[in-house]
Amino acid sequence: MNTFGRIFRVHIYGESHGTELGVLIDGCPAGLEIDEKEFLTDIQRRKAGAKGTTPRTEEDWPMIKSGVFNGKTTGAPIIIGFENKNTKSEDYNELLATPRPGHADYTAKMKFGGFNDYRGGGHFSGRLTLGLIAAGVIAKKIINPIMVKATLIEAGGLKDSEKAIENAIKNNDSIGGIVECCAKNVPIGLGEPFFDSFESLISHIVFAIPAIKGIEFGSGFQSAKMTGSQHNDAFVDVNGKTNTNFSGGISGGITNGNEIYFRVAVKPTSSIAAPQQTMNFESGIIEKLEIKGRHDTCIALRVPVVLEAVTAIVLADLLILEQRIPRIK
Amino acid sequence: MNTFGRIFRVHIYGESHGTELGVLIDGCPAGLEIDEKEFLTDIQRRKAGAKGTTPRTEEDWPMIKSGVFNGKTTGAPIIIGFENKNTKSEDYNELLATPRPGHADYTAKMKFGGFNDYRGGGHFSGRLTLGLIAAGVIAKKIINPIMVKATLIEAGGLKDSEKAIENAIKNNDSIGGIVECCAKNVPIGLGEPFFDSFESLISHIVFAIPAIKGIEFGSGFQSAKMTGSQHNDAFVDVNGKTNTNFSGGISGGITNGNEIYFRVAVKPTSSIAAPQQTMNFESGIIEKLEIKGRHDTCIALRVPVVLEAVTAIVLADLLILEQRIPRIK
Amino acid sequence: MNTFGRIFRVHIYGESHGTELGVLIDGCPAGLEIDEKEFLTDIQRRKAGAKGTTPRTEEDWPMIKSGVFNGKTTGAPIIIGFENKNTKSEDYNELLATPRPGHADYTAKMKFGGFNDYRGGGHFSGRLTLGLIAAGVIAKKIINPIMVKATLIEAGGLKDSEKAIENAIKNNDSIGGIVECCAKNVPIGLGEPFFDSFESLISHIVFAIPAIKGIEFGSGFQSAKMTGSQHNDAFVDVNGKTNTNFSGGISGGITNGNEIYFRVAVKPTSSIAAPQQTMNFESGIIEKLEIKGRHDTCIALRVPVVLEAVTAIVLADLLILEQRIPRIK
Amino acid sequence: MNTFGRIFRVHIYGESHGTELGVLIDGCPAGLEIDEKEFLTDIQRRKAGAKGTTPRTEEDWPMIKSGVFNGKTTGAPIIIGFENKNTKSEDYNELLATPRPGHADYTAKMKFGGFNDYRGGGHFSGRLTLGLIAAGVIAKKIINPIMVKATLIEAGGLKDSEKAIENAIKNNDSIGGIVECCAKNVPIGLGEPFFDSFESLISHIVFAIPAIKGIEFGSGFQSAKMTGSQHNDAFVDVNGKTNTNFSGGISGGITNGNEIYFRVAVKPTSSIAAPQQTMNFESGIIEKLEIKGRHDTCIALRVPVVLEAVTAIVLADLLILEQRIPRIK
Repeated sequence: MNTFGRIFRVHIYGESHGTELGVLIDGCPAGLEIDEKEFLTDIQRRKAGAKGTTPRTEEDWPMIKSGVFNGKTTGAPIIIGFENKNTKSEDYNELLATPRPGHADYTAKMKFGGFNDYRGGGHFSGRLTLGLIAAGVIAKKIINPIMVKATLIEAGGLKDSEKAIENAIKNNDSIGGIVECCAKNVPIGLGEPFFDSFESLISHIVFAIPAIKGIEFGSGFQSAKMTGSQHNDAFVDVNGKTNTNFSGGISGGITNGNEIYFRVAVKPTSSIAAPQQTMNFESGIIEKLEIKGRHDTCIALRVPVVLEAVTAIVLADLLILEQRIPRIK
Repeated sequence: MNTFGRIFRVHIYGESHGTELGVLIDGCPAGLEIDEKEFLTDIQRRKAGAKGTTPRTEEDWPMIKSGVFNGKTTGAPIIIGFENKNTKSEDYNELLATPRPGHADYTAKMKFGGFNDYRGGGHFSGRLTLGLIAAGVIAKKIINPIMVKATLIEAGGLKDSEKAIENAIKNNDSIGGIVECCAKNVPIGLGEPFFDSFESLISHIVFAIPAIKGIEFGSGFQSAKMTGSQHNDAFVDVNGKTNTNFSGGISGGITNGNEIYFRVAVKPTSSIAAPQQTMNFESGIIEKLEIKGRHDTCIALRVPVVLEAVTAIVLADLLILEQRIPRIK
Repeated sequence: MNTFGRIFRVHIYGESHGTELGVLIDGCPAGLEIDEKEFLTDIQRRKAGAKGTTPRTEEDWPMIKSGVFNGKTTGAPIIIGFENKNTKSEDYNELLATPRPGHADYTAKMKFGGFNDYRGGGHFSGRLTLGLIAAGVIAKKIINPIMVKATLIEAGGLKDSEKAIENAIKNNDSIGGIVECCAKNVPIGLGEPFFDSFESLISHIVFAIPAIKGIEFGSGFQSAKMTGSQHNDAFVDVNGKTNTNFSGGISGGITNGNEIYFRVAVKPTSSIAAPQQTMNFESGIIEKLEIKGRHDTCIALRVPVVLEAVTAIVLADLLILEQRIPRIK
Repeated sequence: MNTFGRIFRVHIYGESHGTELGVLIDGCPAGLEIDEKEFLTDIQRRKAGAKGTTPRTEEDWPMIKSGVFNGKTTGAPIIIGFENKNTKSEDYNELLATPRPGHADYTAKMKFGGFNDYRGGGHFSGRLTLGLIAAGVIAKKIINPIMVKATLIEAGGLKDSEKAIENAIKNNDSIGGIVECCAKNVPIGLGEPFFDSFESLISHIVFAIPAIKGIEFGSGFQSAKMTGSQHNDAFVDVNGKTNTNFSGGISGGITNGNEIYFRVAVKPTSSIAAPQQTMNFESGIIEKLEIKGRHDTCIALRVPVVLEAVTAIVLADLLILEQRIPRIK
């Protein structure tokens, strides 16, 4: 199901090498000012071009096709599409027989009976995150004055990510990283006790981002090594502020008024220039695979802006659900 | 929303000290043999009584009230209820003014305007996981021959959890732990590329379990320190088997036929016998709180059976959705 | 899927001759005063006993098992169950071979592979509407001051339903009827342009009531014979009041501030005392079927209170969704 | 919520005078052959141009932008868009002050705080049914060999619709009509006992079609005047065939193997050329409104193809849900 949300609902569509990809947003409040230029900063942040990202430079202009009139949202569904222009389909043909290790090539083929568009990962391409970013830009406007900020805090095991990336480029290899996201000014009361806990919703959409292997809130995995007397956050004022924030701003599945923070693990990019041993599914023989084309050394560099977007999407949905944001701005 | 699932749908209800708690299951295949005695093993595994768990001994007999006829599921909704018998409400009155650090007392009160049943955590009680376990027992029968197995692999930072627990008991303190879950014989093709990725669904329901602070699939947070050439799982046969399994059995959000495995971090129990400094919300003064009653030293001990249950619930739902399990057995 | 609603969500469960039947309500606002005695009027209205209804007299006491504390809703899921006491299972055994014409016996058996509880219609029994009524009582409190009122306006083709019923009883036969429902004080703006139009939601839940064969809003089927100049409701004040109300209070799928009204057609009760020709599925021979037991002459008599309940359920859900009713009372 | 369906899910978007309108389809089986030319017949059937429909001639070419590769569905979301070309926005400006009687102008404005795109009805335009038709074309292919056929059986109260339309044109007026839809070869077992009864799902989506005021299944409103002995359909073979079909092919909310049939009432087109008395919301004065532009005399003429489409959409979703159609063709 390519749908997320209960009221502010996001649906993504498209393929890496198809005509168009994008996002359909349903349930957006009416009366929100929207200008295509507002999308460019976050699109740029996600874009290829920086050291450690693929040199493919897409012109990712957001085409708003419905749901906006006279510069404001109308309350009707919003479609934001992106054209696919700079595509080199010929690079991908050999991958049919030799699915790339670490990629979705094999599962995509098996799940969809071989009918999937395999070019550039097709519907599984990280390029689909453009739709998430577009929805995120709108969500960020909705949730204002909540601020969401994500940062790469480690790459290839080093705090100094630049150095780790240079090493990896030298070795024709790729590296993973850790991204931390925090949200300030989140009101108390978002999320539900069990199935729709705040962590449930965030993690649900976070694992929609390709290459994520783990998520932890507040103290996270470190909590497993702690004692209760260390871990319990003591209240220090009547608004629920605590002296420590091991909870990550969430208690019993519900936001508690302290800063929200969580971290995600991003695996190293699967596409690497160095040759790899793997199986050719046609011949049934282990052979050497060289992946041509342009690749990210450290996909984690692109994750922060996407992580902010999906966090803002969850917040927008919950704030409307909890009636803290009106249906008409 | 106290509901999870698309076809095999689970709804939990009840409070720790109310009349009854349990689970409503909708969309269960018809014709499945169900006997109340089958639930007892997993209920027992979750139960208080073991070293490191609270001495409260509940008689948790599953009352199947609908959806089963002549010992088999009918296809109609199934209600499985549990009576609450051994409750000591008087223990909890002082917590109204002084919400327990690390607990949901404060957020529950704020979210529900003070109307929540605060006795024993009310609807937020870990006792609600009984409903998950009951649904899990049915789910495990549905997904057979898939085997789901979860194990406590570390407590208080030690592989030898017994020792860590004894230390904590001595200190009137509590400890966290790490639980690993694996699933064997899972077919290729479960999960969707983005919002309903296999990891999205598992993590969504895993964070419905109280005290979970993190989840990682396969290589998890370790992947952030690895290179692509280390991390990529090379294919070694035409069924998609790989020589390593850093993917944790999932590629592009879809199960790839290798063993599924993931780990969760469980925080130390919030209720500790040792006195804590925190705020009294009525007086506005920091004071010493002593939590009376019976508490788990290491709640992580109870998590494995719940983790198996929720994993089986996700698998049952996806297997029916993908038409790998018929609607009538 | 035995679930209805987006925020105020209703799930019904149970069988006519099982242990218990009832309703689980999720998403009810917290702080609503609830007393079991408040349910009795509507339960009584639905009850057997009146002329034209079956003499089976159930003691339908609502057991509130969760979600209510100190006489008020807590915001957690509410279970309201009803015990089944006065059941005569032996009446129904012959129906296994000879499914009753006009009943769900045959489709229930086919859909659920013969595993359905066939006693008294099992999960398909009209007795399940008790759960709807219980949810309706709560919904009516939520939507106050909106008033929902349904009335039997015709039975057996006569405005004088008493006479039609007496005739039918004399003939060992049953009759159908028409019930009209209206809702006053409904604000402008409920419903969506297309799939969740107000009519879509009302008709969706109305056809959950057994024996309903049709629904029409405002001018309904009569509109097909009218001209636009007759049918268009002209505005007469700035609040949207119109001189006529052929719209039934809904324009473009959205409530327009005028009184909502719609009518439903109720078929004659399928269970009749008079013998019927039909097929025995075991012998494959057409034979005479005599349905024993106690039956309603005119099931339409019981429909008004159920129709009010489901209408109130839709209104409660939409009013919360549109933020016209707070999540905490 | 502009979404319908559980597995085969349809989302419509767009406005009458915006850039583009269309449909996003999620959950379509992979491997289905799709050619844009296949859509033209049904698009043509819906199109303006016939006597009694508006002379606006749109070039409605379906642009398939995602989810189809090498002429077959891939299993990923399908976007089918239509450009809006032949639009005359200037016609609609005066309607801001004087919402058209019988139209959604007023409720659209009120619901969305005046931010709605009012040009040509905006998102409320009947032109949005193009998206339904496009989804319907795909659904019809999925459900093959089920045949769905809808027919206008009455207009302006006459069986001879041609004559009624000519009269109405002469009078600058419009007329309503009745459309009947039947579906053959529907298997037994689609639909659920209560909330997702077959009638519930059909009526839910049917009331998404503009101008529908009523729906009746099988005997419909006529059943209210019948007796049980007349109305009960007697079984005549072991496959569930009945001698009459007052059930309309549905018993207890579930298809029974007999032909499905139902009728809908279509109100007269609200836009008429003849002047109407109504209120100007700016001046607060009753005045004469003349609606310029091109209008349908009998919108019911366009309904059959839309009714077929939505019926096929429901059937496709239920057939996949019931595992009667595989996820991969």
